[in-house]
Amino acid sequence: MIENGQTYTHDFKFTQDEVNRFAEVTGDKNPVHTDAEFAAKTMFKKPIMHGMLGAALFSKVFGVLFPGEGTIYLKQSLSFLKPMYVDIDYEAIFTVKEVIKDKHRAIIETLIKDKITGNVCTSGEALVMNMDRI
Amino acid sequence: MIENGQTYTHDFKFTQDEVNRFAEVTGDKNPVHTDAEFAAKTMFKKPIMHGMLGAALFSKVFGVLFPGEGTIYLKQSLSFLKPMYVDIDYEAIFTVKEVIKDKHRAIIETLIKDKITGNVCTSGEALVMNMDRI
Repeated sequence: MIENGQTYTHDFKFTQDEVNRFAEVTGDKNPVHTDAEFAAKTMFKKPIMHGMLGAALFSKVFGVLFPGEGTIYLKQSLSFLKPMYVDIDYEAIFTVKEVIKDKHRAIIETLIKDKITGNVCTSGEALVMNMDRI
Repeated sequence: MIENGQTYTHDFKFTQDEVNRFAEVTGDKNPVHTDAEFAAKTMFKKPIMHGMLGAALFSKVFGVLFPGEGTIYLKQSLSFLKPMYVDIDYEAIFTVKEVIKDKHRAIIETLIKDKITGNVCTSGEALVMNMDRI
């Protein structure tokens, strides 16, 4: 069962090929994500990951790992604080802020940090429900 | 240039194959999205789209359509109010709530509605920046 103050971490990185496939399936073909030549002329200097690909990591962790099966995703706030790049190691960090036991809900802080620099790239908060695990 | 009160709409639907590809690339392989037999035993009755796939539509519109090229995505809040299903027609509706001219930023309400029932499935608010178009 999920408890107040509990944390869960999940390491990840995405390749350029995965970013290209995300662009293809979502239709988000902004060239800043997929075209190195275009990206080189922007403030980012090289292709950046879609912010929503990072956010999809939160969804993955909630749905399959923590709390896992049966989780229903109710809310998510997202602040895209710094660009994320391909082939860089990131860590998604989940901290349980509040358990609403009678509603089987929890408020969970969601962060993505660059594993080398420690910089927070994405921050936010989720509200999830799980009848068996919260 | 983006103006206060301006709206923009974008129709979309996703197939089961696209949902499967989204599951594959993001790693969010919760069977409620991809396994009809599993989904039939849940409250949803049939596979549901990933909420973040709907949210990725917001990112697509901001990045390539409205305001379009050069948009930087700063914040997004998301409330997943109702499940979304494959092969159903949805409409993403964007309403400019506030233009912060000197910072080239705008607060934009983001909704996804079922085109037949009119039900709001996802609601939220975005903060975006575009040096040329806001």
